[in-house]
Amino acid sequence: MKIDGVPSRTIWLQPDDWSVGIIDQTALPHKIERLTLTTVEDAARAIKTMQVRGAPLIGVTAAYGVALAMRSDPSDDALERAVAFLAAQRPTAINLRWALNDLREALRPLSPDDRAQAAYDRAARIANDDVEMCRRIGVNGLALIKELAAKKNGEPVNVLTHCNAGWLACVDWGTATAPIYQANDAGISVHVWVDETRPRNQGAALTAFELLHHGVPHTLIADNAGGHLMQHGDIDLIIVGTDRVTASGDVANKIGTYLKALAAHDNGVPFYVALPSSTIDWSIADGADIPIEERAAEEVLRVQGRLFDGTVASVAVTAEGTPARNPAFDVTPARLVTGFITERGICKASREGLLSLYPERKSAAA
Amino acid sequence: MKIDGVPSRTIWLQPDDWSVGIIDQTALPHKIERLTLTTVEDAARAIKTMQVRGAPLIGVTAAYGVALAMRSDPSDDALERAVAFLAAQRPTAINLRWALNDLREALRPLSPDDRAQAAYDRAARIANDDVEMCRRIGVNGLALIKELAAKKNGEPVNVLTHCNAGWLACVDWGTATAPIYQANDAGISVHVWVDETRPRNQGAALTAFELLHHGVPHTLIADNAGGHLMQHGDIDLIIVGTDRVTASGDVANKIGTYLKALAAHDNGVPFYVALPSSTIDWSIADGADIPIEERAAEEVLRVQGRLFDGTVASVAVTAEGTPARNPAFDVTPARLVTGFITERGICKASREGLLSLYPERKSAAA
Repeated sequence: MKIDGVPSRTIWLQPDDWSVGIIDQTALPHKIERLTLTTVEDAARAIKTMQVRGAPLIGVTAAYGVALAMRSDPSDDALERAVAFLAAQRPTAINLRWALNDLREALRPLSPDDRAQAAYDRAARIANDDVEMCRRIGVNGLALIKELAAKKNGEPVNVLTHCNAGWLACVDWGTATAPIYQANDAGISVHVWVDETRPRNQGAALTAFELLHHGVPHTLIADNAGGHLMQHGDIDLIIVGTDRVTASGDVANKIGTYLKALAAHDNGVPFYVALPSSTIDWSIADGADIPIEERAAEEVLRVQGRLFDGTVASVAVTAEGTPARNPAFDVTPARLVTGFITERGICKASREGLLSLYPERKSAAA
Repeated sequence: MKIDGVPSRTIWLQPDDWSVGIIDQTALPHKIERLTLTTVEDAARAIKTMQVRGAPLIGVTAAYGVALAMRSDPSDDALERAVAFLAAQRPTAINLRWALNDLREALRPLSPDDRAQAAYDRAARIANDDVEMCRRIGVNGLALIKELAAKKNGEPVNVLTHCNAGWLACVDWGTATAPIYQANDAGISVHVWVDETRPRNQGAALTAFELLHHGVPHTLIADNAGGHLMQHGDIDLIIVGTDRVTASGDVANKIGTYLKALAAHDNGVPFYVALPSSTIDWSIADGADIPIEERAAEEVLRVQGRLFDGTVASVAVTAEGTPARNPAFDVTPARLVTGFITERGICKASREGLLSLYPERKSAAA
């Protein structure tokens, strides 16, 4: 998607054909800083400090990290060290481990001389596969927006999204945002309500930034406002991303998603979840079995932003001594979800729906 | 309730017996600043800029505003001007209009010489009536908490509240918080989940401040978290305040209330609204007829808080150029409300329920 009119990805090979460019996401939305990774240590630091974030992007960065390591030392030892080192940066990120295993399996049989190029090729393929996955989610979701647009006589289709399931979390397109970008780029009038998404404000800091720079009309709202807007017919469609979907269609996503799903259900607003099929956990049926991460109270007690002089700072919103709790995700039961938008198509949020798109999973599904 | 151990009210007559003291609530929770109002313009500004906020406190401040106006010009014209001027400061607040009508009706028949003193007397009476009203709401709501406590074997009763319907919104006790303070002061174990309440953070800044200073156990959460906590049985009871209740029981309250009511309904958590009967608008049946105030986008785009050095500052949470919308209230339909806690008792959220407590309104009710 575009930044200042220039088509951009979150990670790319620099013109020197070996060093790796990223956008430093810790500086967003206040500054656009591009960094160059030249060593495996650079890649590890980018993952650790969340200069890159979002499951797909973390995986791609790790893959390029292995390529950088192989460039300076393609030995078996160096390969094992690089994989272990990168994996340790975000201990719970499953995509990180998946990408690293993929690289190790591919490189080990090769002669050391061929490893660096093979690693670059593989990293590029993982990145391109992610772009293609998101693009297809976009094409499938676009049909929904077109259908709504046909009823709106040129008035914009109003889509609400929560958190950031945008291109900044992926390589390009995003998941929840892919149908929106495709609609916008196809000349369909679309307007996005962006939930701020406290406590980390990914909506305000990342989703609104993306849409602003790509030129998609949007409006930031407090997380509290979506229900009211739905009551007044101001929202035609909700699309969110997800961190994990169970085999029966329950959806774990950023805290607050469940509240929007309830309001959508109460007001007859279609509520869709966009996801690549790698997000489906076929081993779990009930969303209550998904472990929910509790994050630091500090994130609730403070807010980061930009002072009038441009400095980025964090402010405390309570009196000293106030305790806080910070569950990071919630589970939206399948009954509140209108459907899933995946790379293969759209389906109902149920075991039957998912298996209609992924029949090969019939034996695996819990 | 107490600040630093000292029993306090939100508004009072200064020792000079004519100027009016308030706590500047825009400085909370970072600083406790007391201001003196000496003109009707001061009172209007305090209402407009939310130095005073909360339906009852706005009403009392407006009443003192009329008194200050009468002190400098007690003519019929000045009375009408003061009433119209004060009423225009917050369009959704019914209490504001109620207090101003009360003052106008009381003052018009009097000779101009008697109006200032009569206005002061009336303002003091409205303030004292509010304290007594809240105390009675507390006594009535206490019964609900006692009932829940009896089932919890000494575990705390977990009450969620949204925004600030606390003593800082009233003169003392608060509405939604009155039952909580009475339970706490009676030695019943109670714990309060405090919704942050973006965009103005009244929960983080005011409710958490109140509870901290009075010594009631509490935990701040993002507005997004309540649904998840209800799904996990962590909330026994919700009590919120309201800015206006219709004759059929629809409830206008701070934006986001509707989302919590939906989650309460979905999880079988009792959802109560605490209110003095002056908040009931007998002339409106349908909540959709309540005008909803739209506030400045700036409130969504920025967050105020305390820097590490103790300075209070405001930070922008988005890139420059992000648009925002800021509806300040939403309407919770009566069907989602378990009951009303009023100064006369507890009733169902319906025309029949309200009339059972206020039978004298049978002819007035829309």
